[in-house]
Amino acid sequence: MGNTFGHLFRITTFGESHGGGVGVVIDGCPPQLEITPEEIQFELDRRRPGQSKITTPRKEADACEILSGVFEGKTLGTPIAILVRNKNTRPQDYSEMAQTYRPSHADATYDAKYGIRNWQGGGRSSARETIGRVAAGAIAKKILQQVAGVEIVGYVKRIKDIEATIDPNTVTLDLVEKNIVRCPDFAAAERMIEIIDRTRREKNSLGGVVECVARNVPKGLGEPVFDKLEADLAKGVMSLPASKGFEIGSGFAGTVLTGREHNDEFYCDEQGEIRTRTNRSGGIQGGIANGEPIVLRVAFKPTATIGKEQQTVTSSGEQTTLAAKGRHDPCVLPRAVPMVEAMVALVLCDHLLRDRGQCSVLKP
Amino acid sequence: MGNTFGHLFRITTFGESHGGGVGVVIDGCPPQLEITPEEIQFELDRRRPGQSKITTPRKEADACEILSGVFEGKTLGTPIAILVRNKNTRPQDYSEMAQTYRPSHADATYDAKYGIRNWQGGGRSSARETIGRVAAGAIAKKILQQVAGVEIVGYVKRIKDIEATIDPNTVTLDLVEKNIVRCPDFAAAERMIEIIDRTRREKNSLGGVVECVARNVPKGLGEPVFDKLEADLAKGVMSLPASKGFEIGSGFAGTVLTGREHNDEFYCDEQGEIRTRTNRSGGIQGGIANGEPIVLRVAFKPTATIGKEQQTVTSSGEQTTLAAKGRHDPCVLPRAVPMVEAMVALVLCDHLLRDRGQCSVLKP
Amino acid sequence: MGNTFGHLFRITTFGESHGGGVGVVIDGCPPQLEITPEEIQFELDRRRPGQSKITTPRKEADACEILSGVFEGKTLGTPIAILVRNKNTRPQDYSEMAQTYRPSHADATYDAKYGIRNWQGGGRSSARETIGRVAAGAIAKKILQQVAGVEIVGYVKRIKDIEATIDPNTVTLDLVEKNIVRCPDFAAAERMIEIIDRTRREKNSLGGVVECVARNVPKGLGEPVFDKLEADLAKGVMSLPASKGFEIGSGFAGTVLTGREHNDEFYCDEQGEIRTRTNRSGGIQGGIANGEPIVLRVAFKPTATIGKEQQTVTSSGEQTTLAAKGRHDPCVLPRAVPMVEAMVALVLCDHLLRDRGQCSVLKP
Amino acid sequence: MGNTFGHLFRITTFGESHGGGVGVVIDGCPPQLEITPEEIQFELDRRRPGQSKITTPRKEADACEILSGVFEGKTLGTPIAILVRNKNTRPQDYSEMAQTYRPSHADATYDAKYGIRNWQGGGRSSARETIGRVAAGAIAKKILQQVAGVEIVGYVKRIKDIEATIDPNTVTLDLVEKNIVRCPDFAAAERMIEIIDRTRREKNSLGGVVECVARNVPKGLGEPVFDKLEADLAKGVMSLPASKGFEIGSGFAGTVLTGREHNDEFYCDEQGEIRTRTNRSGGIQGGIANGEPIVLRVAFKPTATIGKEQQTVTSSGEQTTLAAKGRHDPCVLPRAVPMVEAMVALVLCDHLLRDRGQCSVLKP
Repeated sequence: MGNTFGHLFRITTFGESHGGGVGVVIDGCPPQLEITPEEIQFELDRRRPGQSKITTPRKEADACEILSGVFEGKTLGTPIAILVRNKNTRPQDYSEMAQTYRPSHADATYDAKYGIRNWQGGGRSSARETIGRVAAGAIAKKILQQVAGVEIVGYVKRIKDIEATIDPNTVTLDLVEKNIVRCPDFAAAERMIEIIDRTRREKNSLGGVVECVARNVPKGLGEPVFDKLEADLAKGVMSLPASKGFEIGSGFAGTVLTGREHNDEFYCDEQGEIRTRTNRSGGIQGGIANGEPIVLRVAFKPTATIGKEQQTVTSSGEQTTLAAKGRHDPCVLPRAVPMVEAMVALVLCDHLLRDRGQCSVLKP
Repeated sequence: MGNTFGHLFRITTFGESHGGGVGVVIDGCPPQLEITPEEIQFELDRRRPGQSKITTPRKEADACEILSGVFEGKTLGTPIAILVRNKNTRPQDYSEMAQTYRPSHADATYDAKYGIRNWQGGGRSSARETIGRVAAGAIAKKILQQVAGVEIVGYVKRIKDIEATIDPNTVTLDLVEKNIVRCPDFAAAERMIEIIDRTRREKNSLGGVVECVARNVPKGLGEPVFDKLEADLAKGVMSLPASKGFEIGSGFAGTVLTGREHNDEFYCDEQGEIRTRTNRSGGIQGGIANGEPIVLRVAFKPTATIGKEQQTVTSSGEQTTLAAKGRHDPCVLPRAVPMVEAMVALVLCDHLLRDRGQCSVLKP
Repeated sequence: MGNTFGHLFRITTFGESHGGGVGVVIDGCPPQLEITPEEIQFELDRRRPGQSKITTPRKEADACEILSGVFEGKTLGTPIAILVRNKNTRPQDYSEMAQTYRPSHADATYDAKYGIRNWQGGGRSSARETIGRVAAGAIAKKILQQVAGVEIVGYVKRIKDIEATIDPNTVTLDLVEKNIVRCPDFAAAERMIEIIDRTRREKNSLGGVVECVARNVPKGLGEPVFDKLEADLAKGVMSLPASKGFEIGSGFAGTVLTGREHNDEFYCDEQGEIRTRTNRSGGIQGGIANGEPIVLRVAFKPTATIGKEQQTVTSSGEQTTLAAKGRHDPCVLPRAVPMVEAMVALVLCDHLLRDRGQCSVLKP
Repeated sequence: MGNTFGHLFRITTFGESHGGGVGVVIDGCPPQLEITPEEIQFELDRRRPGQSKITTPRKEADACEILSGVFEGKTLGTPIAILVRNKNTRPQDYSEMAQTYRPSHADATYDAKYGIRNWQGGGRSSARETIGRVAAGAIAKKILQQVAGVEIVGYVKRIKDIEATIDPNTVTLDLVEKNIVRCPDFAAAERMIEIIDRTRREKNSLGGVVECVARNVPKGLGEPVFDKLEADLAKGVMSLPASKGFEIGSGFAGTVLTGREHNDEFYCDEQGEIRTRTNRSGGIQGGIANGEPIVLRVAFKPTATIGKEQQTVTSSGEQTTLAAKGRHDPCVLPRAVPMVEAMVALVLCDHLLRDRGQCSVLKP
């Protein structure tokens, strides 16, 4: 059951990196949304490998086919199934991994859990699994945009210790897409690209932080207890490969402030809208959106699969060394940006439908 | 639907801080577990207010009644309902808040979502809601302990900028309970208590970080994609009031390392068990437990409700000021420790049952 | 997880017939619904034992307490917990059943599944469990009534072979409540009461059929595939104790017609509304309500617990006989009427919210 | 969310009768099950149209492709996606139905709900949707067979008023497959075939009853309250197209018996196993399997789409007539047999995993 996400706007992904293909089934999509394969492909292209010198050199077109749920350019309200065929696979690159566990990868834990594993790649732990999420996220984004003008913009906030300065209130997709590292602080971006490229040549890898903002989120999305908006966002992004941490609003840094310093004081703006002067809450109070920009950050560890030699063991427990031969990203961050955006969109869209379901019924 | 947590071991909490009471229904508990009200009360007493000078002076006995699901000291396999009556409530303390929104609290967002709010306290956003979680967590802990010797220990890792040094591999509940701030680094604890007490007198509040370790977690718990163990843990603890951030293993700090530095190399121990030499993964790889201690951290913001005067607005949008009169914690961290442990136990217990359900069926 | 029903309007029941009490938690209730304990008690009184000479002589006031979720007479949108204390229990009546399995009852299967059982009554298999459903159903009915004027009326259609003639298009609650057997065909009702009373004196029991109609159900409720409206209705009523069969519209009798005879031809009424001339579909086509009255029937077997002596075995497998001493209904049908209505209301209310969640979002 | 079925063994189907294809994603399948495409194709072939003169003449090979979740002939424990391409579609056969509602079909209700409809066939209401169920059912059957020797056999029990005599305790798949109507009472079968063939020529259609037995179901499967085994079975089969009624064990006929006549008395067999002398319970007591054969019946109405002319309206409300031109089954029963078996297998397999998840954890 762990391959389904969301309650009303609900997606189920399937597929391994090697095999017939990967994809997603989206259940609960509102009917009559205009959507084209191109809109979905746009997001998939942001996610796909081989985009630039700082991503994996694997070339995958990742062309999507909409199998169902769309008719004459509009959603039917029935399940939208999207399939991306696996191509350009090189199982031979992985033959060594049939026996040898990659450190900090999922090989050993899959074997421990299932007693079987598709060793011709990462299986479900491959970043390829996120294709389905990104495809579904494209649709979620469009719904949110259409219903409430919601804008979701992710970007690389930090690579290793190179931190960018970016204003979440004004950053745009256009700015993000201006460079291959997806960091709209262009000076920082240049240094990031340089360090990633150098690390790639050293057969090593890097981590960092993605920040994501969602603006114009309707007040009231989210629920009070377990399904607090920040809890579902946390689950969403922490289910992405290589994520190690999550922050909303002030996050860990906010814990060194006092309550007096941290609280967001209320005021009424010219439109009579209740607003907060600061946004340490990150757009969510008591689990529910307050209308301010939702701002979150996700920590991604350095890619586990590296070309450098490491100590490890085989599945039968013998000590050995491994220097991975596959074509891997030296840094997942640039490609993680659309993945984070997708998860944010999926969470918000699900909560939009849930809120309408519960709270609009008795409204006059 | 946002008041239910878990799939096979599933809890539903109910109740506001003011009204008949708060409680929990636990569905899916394995039958024939020996459990006493005292074992549940033990955890509730760790959570309850009025424990010490650094928690809220509200005195609540929080005595639990098991309404169903336990017979002659053993679980029946049917729903366990636990009720804690509300007592010692002082709605008059909150009368001002019927109109005036507390900054960084849930008053305004509840009104935006539901158009109605029990203003005689925090309603569902009150920390009182966590009683049900902690009661259910006591049962989850016992199952985990009995099935696999799992030990879950939480503690205060940091208050403001006072950071403790604690070894997650050896820390025990006994050590944690040795002082009122629940920090087993006794020197740090002293300074923490002092700063909390001073802040309380200043009618201000503090935040910090709780760390929690789960040892002896069976290899294989967790699922590959959306229900990765770290994703469900993140959701669990980020659904606690006042939480702002989550980390597993190396967390945000791990993002400044290279892959070579970050990866946990494998080796075989004397028992032939596959282990990792380091534990930057925090006990989880690819979403699945690898048998090493699961280590996570949760950031809690400073308590929103403070006695100091703040700028705010009324529900009708008029500018006003508020100096809260209720009896509030100057720092939620000491009481958050059993809450974090409970959420960790609930996630692990649910995944234990799920793993057995899927993966044990065809085992010889 | 088997104690929760519904997705958006979701209830969880708890409690055994003996123990602290029984109750329900309702999650997802729309906010600002006016509801009084009296409205809930009205339905509970229709369900409770001891109403008349043809129900069990057990006297249970079944007074409900709303623990949470309602404030100043209105729903808060947060969980509504309702508790009914167990009183007038007589565990001694059941002492024999600690060892001896009642034929066609749940004693043996509970033991097989859980290895433990609360033998002081039926435990979760007791009809007492339905208190929570009926209480929640009262709220669901009110929402449906308020939003769309939905009327749900159940009645006894048949006892043994005494069949009533009732027009589902016009029958009312008032008519149903006119006699103790809840059959608005008064001539049939008299004969039903007589046969039930005679059977009671013979320490035997009877079964029959409850019919239920839901009028003014909005077109469009229900979903195409697994959650077809008739599928969810079937599950709802087949989860009631003692139910053995379900029919929608023409049911089993419809299978002897040809398609030409069975199909409901369409026409447009004076209001321009698309209607069907006949209603063999029972108000549902393709899993989705078509606006015609939803008509369904439920078969209830004769009560399993009877005073007549029967062959059975003990839990250790020894042959013995049993003549039950408890106070049991000679026929569950009259009390089953509000239970069936409750399940119908819960299904429709859940689908109302689900439909609004998915299908209203993009409406202009 | 209505396209997902099951909790631990969970399937999601997708696809319309016209479009890229139909299929299923199976989540939660136990790992290491040996499964071949041929085993799945075997069941699909029993379901597919064009098998004989009494089914629709549409020729669809319905060849399945396993996209994921199976590696070197064994299940991985990760989602199994199965795709069947749509071929041999004739949208032109349906062009009239773009505007004209077929009586007792889903055209009008889909339009009412979604405001849009794929009129080139039945969309999701097409029997083609059941391909995914049958494919998943093949896997569920194999698990049940392997774990406990469960045998699931469905057959046609009645067509119109021609009723067959079949012993559910001994009937086998081989006998069922001996004739094209899938009725192992060969004399009845002959008359059934004749009447179906005649009705086909008359451009009319017939209904009937499918009976299904599941033998060797482990005691203890099922849950006490909402997820009673009979409730989930009822939902499963009532979600099949054209179903109008459901019975378990004695069903509606059992309601004319007294309790003394209806109860299944217990005895101990030679193996010391607690058994019942009769099986009016249909293998389930209190919602939980008692080890006796589970016997259920499903009523299927006559096919709605017929060649005979009928009165109807267009989507804009004008009165018209319709004589359907598509290639439709004169009687769905023979093809419904594998569908019913599949739903029974899916329910039992899900409950098998759920039971192991909850009840095996604390077993010594």
